Amino acid sequence: MAPNPTPSQADRAPGVAALSGPLLHPASVAIVGASDDPKKTTGRPQRFLAAAGYEGTAWFVNPRRGTVQGVKAYPSLSALPAVPDHVYVMTGADAAVDTVAEAARLGVPVVTVLSSGFAEEGAEGKAREDRLRAAAAQGPTRVVGPSSLGVVNPRNGVMLTGNAAFGEPDTPTGGIFVASQSGSVIGAMVSRARGRGIGFAGLVSTGGEADLSLGEICSATLDDPEITSYALFLESLRHAGDLADFAAAAHRAGKPVAVYKLGRSDEAAALTVSHTGALAGEDSEAEAFFRACGFVRVATFEGLCEAPALLERIPSDGPARPRVGVVTTTGGGAAIMVDQLALRGLSVRGPSRELVERMAAAGAPVPHSLIADLGLAGAKHDVVSAALRELQDSGEFDLVLFVIGSSARLNPELAVQALAERGGHAVPVVGFALPEAPDAANLLASSGVPAFRTPESCADAIAAAFSRRSATIDPKRIAGLPDGTPRLLDEQVSAELLAGVGVPALPSVALKTASIDDEVTLPFGYPVVVKALSDQLAHKTDVGGVVLGVADADALRAAVRKIAVDVAERAGITVDRVLVQPMADKGVGEVLVGYRRSPDVGPVVVLSTGGVQAELYDDSAIRLAPVDRATAQEMIDEVTGLAVLKGHRGTPAGDVPALADAVVALSHLAVEHPSIVEAEANPVLVRTEGVVALDALVRRIDDEKSGRA
Amino acid sequence: MAPNPTPSQADRAPGVAALSGPLLHPASVAIVGASDDPKKTTGRPQRFLAAAGYEGTAWFVNPRRGTVQGVKAYPSLSALPAVPDHVYVMTGADAAVDTVAEAARLGVPVVTVLSSGFAEEGAEGKAREDRLRAAAAQGPTRVVGPSSLGVVNPRNGVMLTGNAAFGEPDTPTGGIFVASQSGSVIGAMVSRARGRGIGFAGLVSTGGEADLSLGEICSATLDDPEITSYALFLESLRHAGDLADFAAAAHRAGKPVAVYKLGRSDEAAALTVSHTGALAGEDSEAEAFFRACGFVRVATFEGLCEAPALLERIPSDGPARPRVGVVTTTGGGAAIMVDQLALRGLSVRGPSRELVERMAAAGAPVPHSLIADLGLAGAKHDVVSAALRELQDSGEFDLVLFVIGSSARLNPELAVQALAERGGHAVPVVGFALPEAPDAANLLASSGVPAFRTPESCADAIAAAFSRRSATIDPKRIAGLPDGTPRLLDEQVSAELLAGVGVPALPSVALKTASIDDEVTLPFGYPVVVKALSDQLAHKTDVGGVVLGVADADALRAAVRKIAVDVAERAGITVDRVLVQPMADKGVGEVLVGYRRSPDVGPVVVLSTGGVQAELYDDSAIRLAPVDRATAQEMIDEVTGLAVLKGHRGTPAGDVPALADAVVALSHLAVEHPSIVEAEANPVLVRTEGVVALDALVRRIDDEKSGRA
Repeated sequence: MAPNPTPSQADRAPGVAALSGPLLHPASVAIVGASDDPKKTTGRPQRFLAAAGYEGTAWFVNPRRGTVQGVKAYPSLSALPAVPDHVYVMTGADAAVDTVAEAARLGVPVVTVLSSGFAEEGAEGKAREDRLRAAAAQGPTRVVGPSSLGVVNPRNGVMLTGNAAFGEPDTPTGGIFVASQSGSVIGAMVSRARGRGIGFAGLVSTGGEADLSLGEICSATLDDPEITSYALFLESLRHAGDLADFAAAAHRAGKPVAVYKLGRSDEAAALTVSHTGALAGEDSEAEAFFRACGFVRVATFEGLCEAPALLERIPSDGPARPRVGVVTTTGGGAAIMVDQLALRGLSVRGPSRELVERMAAAGAPVPHSLIADLGLAGAKHDVVSAALRELQDSGEFDLVLFVIGSSARLNPELAVQALAERGGHAVPVVGFALPEAPDAANLLASSGVPAFRTPESCADAIAAAFSRRSATIDPKRIAGLPDGTPRLLDEQVSAELLAGVGVPALPSVALKTASIDDEVTLPFGYPVVVKALSDQLAHKTDVGGVVLGVADADALRAAVRKIAVDVAERAGITVDRVLVQPMADKGVGEVLVGYRRSPDVGPVVVLSTGGVQAELYDDSAIRLAPVDRATAQEMIDEVTGLAVLKGHRGTPAGDVPALADAVVALSHLAVEHPSIVEAEANPVLVRTEGVVALDALVRRIDDEKSGRA
Repeated sequence: MAPNPTPSQADRAPGVAALSGPLLHPASVAIVGASDDPKKTTGRPQRFLAAAGYEGTAWFVNPRRGTVQGVKAYPSLSALPAVPDHVYVMTGADAAVDTVAEAARLGVPVVTVLSSGFAEEGAEGKAREDRLRAAAAQGPTRVVGPSSLGVVNPRNGVMLTGNAAFGEPDTPTGGIFVASQSGSVIGAMVSRARGRGIGFAGLVSTGGEADLSLGEICSATLDDPEITSYALFLESLRHAGDLADFAAAAHRAGKPVAVYKLGRSDEAAALTVSHTGALAGEDSEAEAFFRACGFVRVATFEGLCEAPALLERIPSDGPARPRVGVVTTTGGGAAIMVDQLALRGLSVRGPSRELVERMAAAGAPVPHSLIADLGLAGAKHDVVSAALRELQDSGEFDLVLFVIGSSARLNPELAVQALAERGGHAVPVVGFALPEAPDAANLLASSGVPAFRTPESCADAIAAAFSRRSATIDPKRIAGLPDGTPRLLDEQVSAELLAGVGVPALPSVALKTASIDDEVTLPFGYPVVVKALSDQLAHKTDVGGVVLGVADADALRAAVRKIAVDVAERAGITVDRVLVQPMADKGVGEVLVGYRRSPDVGPVVVLSTGGVQAELYDDSAIRLAPVDRATAQEMIDEVTGLAVLKGHRGTPAGDVPALADAVVALSHLAVEHPSIVEAEANPVLVRTEGVVALDALVRRIDDEKSGRA
């Protein structure tokens, strides 16, 4: 059965490229609901457009006035001399729907809606939002918003925004395109970038994404040659399919994407009954999604401004353990950075003895240690220049970080200038100034050398940049769940299904509880484990549905009776059958391998330690499915608790390749069984040779129309 | 036997209060090695003193010139018209020793030494440092440094520093005293505080701490009434006894202390053989030490500037789960803060429905939700003022955070001004501006309202402030190790010793391997565990020294023979005796309880999960010993993996009170057995009733003189 395509995937994404012009480069704009008062939110765009020197045609619509701020006001869009490329609507909610309808009739390509009162405001608002979408669909019109604080292109003075922050002159221009689910963030980013050599090619507050999603808006801008990188501010992951389309196209275009995303929510976990669900919460799924998209997630807000410049210098699929060199004129500042990098898993390495000798010969003497410390006296142009050249030329580093002392603030023409001149080398350099040093930051960034204001954002950006992977996402896989209600399969059917894709199971035999007093012959020896077998029971142990270490046939009968009584009593379920398996050895370790079809990001696969440990320590790895061997191995390395599989204190090592095979196998459910919404092998016993699932749980949606699964 | 007191404790700390005057308020200063060139490091103090308007007498010593920078130069300290209060030495290392000797003869109270070439430079440097100390000890002279970038008091123009950062005019004054092991940090902090309403009552680069330690320097300043808080920058924990003295006195004086400390080192772990050692590394010990000191550790560098103002508003021993309210004009910015606070374990709570009604009645309508969102339109003085008043008066919050939008930058007279006026209320308010808003920060901080520049430092400071506890440290306990070589005790002796202080052990019996073929009668039944018993063997399992599940007497003999062979082969140790114990049940969980006498911070007690889990997840709690019941309970709550002791999925809960008793008991080794340098019960089985140690390891120093232990 075919998954349910979202409208955006089916027919919208291909068309968005044509929106680039009207979105960021409109030849004409109209403000609907324009105020005569330049201080009011609705009066601001007129003031901002004029101040920014917008050279296109700007019209203002206000049916109650002849002029606004001294300029002719039109009674409606239809009354304008021509059809505008881009309309910004600042009226009340119902009037905004009317305006969109009018724009659609006229053929306006883009309408941005400031008005609120839509889906965020209950049933009435949702109905209004449906009317808004329907109105747009009557013509070629695409809508940004509602609740959009606007669209800004500082390169050409397009200031379709009510955000007061854009009242300041000279919004800094540059290569970053910002798309934000929060309207105030676009203004905050501009103010934080100001005077630091960081600038923007465009900023969009995406608002409610009732029509154009954040991903579609970004896709629309990809052909703009002056946009060199993207900075996304996400409150939550929405319209993942559109983001995946954008990710694939951004990867082809070689334009890096930094993401700051808020929060951890338990909503996704509530949709599922397996442990996999609890581990693969909304934020973890988003993380896996970003990785597959080739996006880089930054952890600091400053990093969202500062990281893009670094991403432009470091290609995807860089070394997982980058060789970071640190040169400095302030030992204390460099030590802060070594610490911050180590906290993010990055080890600084010192120059080799030979390199130290070459540096000395070049006039940049440093001690042979972890940090190339030039000392206070090293804050000279020639010394720093020689030091950086030798470090960059050495082949010993993937990145050289210069931690600059007081000279960054007081004499940027010395060390900072030398750093600014080294940005062209194949080995990137970056700068962190320990003091407050705005001029240094400005000089560096303007010269193409990424500069950072806090040690935390510097380390954050470096770690994020090297974690960037090529986009591997297949946008077609991001789809909603198939129609129908998922149904739990019993353990035996579940285990057979998983064995069928390549996850080995223990031998087992099902017995009827009714005939348990008959003679029992098992195909394997005692001791055995006895488990309630039912498609009504997801967690057997909790309700007395499992008896371990059953030694003989009499004990087996007793166990079956006890299980029947306990489960009936504690879960209200009649147990007709039990599953009998041989008792397993302890193996080297136990893991959980899970698969889940997420309504947000599509199929994901989860690996964690077995038992309560994974939940307590939030210790799991998650990827979009399917995964390959290398990715499965990467997941195994990522789970802290699975270090025991490498052998410990004389215990043997587990069969990690077989575990990787099992992860790969389970992940193929994404392709081979699209009706399976959830599957889990837990625990999977990892032995010195091979792995085997001791329990299995599958939930599947039966196709209600065809009866096929 | 008495522990070895460090010199600082024995006789120095009491005297340092008298140094406050010459250190920060000298009536006269002398610069030795003053240069005629105002741009040279050695020419700077003269220039800085003049620019800062130092009103005392400044003399300059340079034997090679008649004048420096147009002012009379003296050939030596002895040639000065009077004895200066404070001398800053900027000569070479050997000349610095001579100068200190001369100062001591003259009776100079404080000499600060910029010169390097001391303990950091090998044996020769160490010898020179000994001479420096000896020279000072000939008189009343106390030394700051060597390698000190200086001592600054911006209140009175004392600028005894070569740090170029102090060449800028108007070093901001305020209540923070900075003591830093890094010289460049004092300049960086001043530059980062500048223009933000944050100011300093003094800054000292403590350098090599050859004589005056950082703790002593801080103690010396405690009587200065204008110093209201301390900000410490530590590269490593040194002279903990002096810091403990300072902590106790700072607590009495009600002056809060913020600490930024670098790094994690494995050096401490190398000193010990038990797991406790690996868990209680240098940084963990420092963390436990800071807690006992009542210091607050900040994780962000910005936080070191920004947190002190908040610490001055929030007393020690505030609520562990503070009720933080968030009010905002920018929903996106507030969401960032909710996220950042949650990452640090702090939950934001929304106003009650009644409070929402009162706010609306007061002219500050907000939706009933987690964040009191006033919206863009709420950025008015009266609205914000009413909102803050209602939130502060409600009794529903321990702190109110105002997240300010674009008005913070563009119209600080609106919302920011209203916030600035609310700082006097018993419930503290703090501000975070989403945009870059230096004027807002300045206005707030100058009005006594803590303000933050990044969401990370804001959340860091709030979390740190509420974690602050009263100083409980007993400086007398911070002492070096007792003399002698620690000796491992065998398991039986170790277990008896621990049982003696109150850590229960399993019954056990020791058998001689030589007589194992004789009839064996055990005081308990089979199955049993058999373990090599030797004071040569710290880790028995690794070398085949343990056999579990021994079922009868024959199996016991076989196990003993196998142990003897395996341990001889794998560890080269002859096993004369074995220890036999009954096999224990599985209990509810296993933990490690450890005790260690740290050379840096004195006795500490460590609690962690048992087995490899604690090491993999770095999951342990550590406190200075001895601990009380409440602290032991706090430690149990702190170890993530011990959540299993609360019962999980139908398993019963463990006897947590008994575990707390065991932790308290082990910690009393600190008092009752000062010769024990290390003790560990691992694993300790936590049962539904009671706890029992399954293995024990003690290392003790025998008093070599008296033969007593």
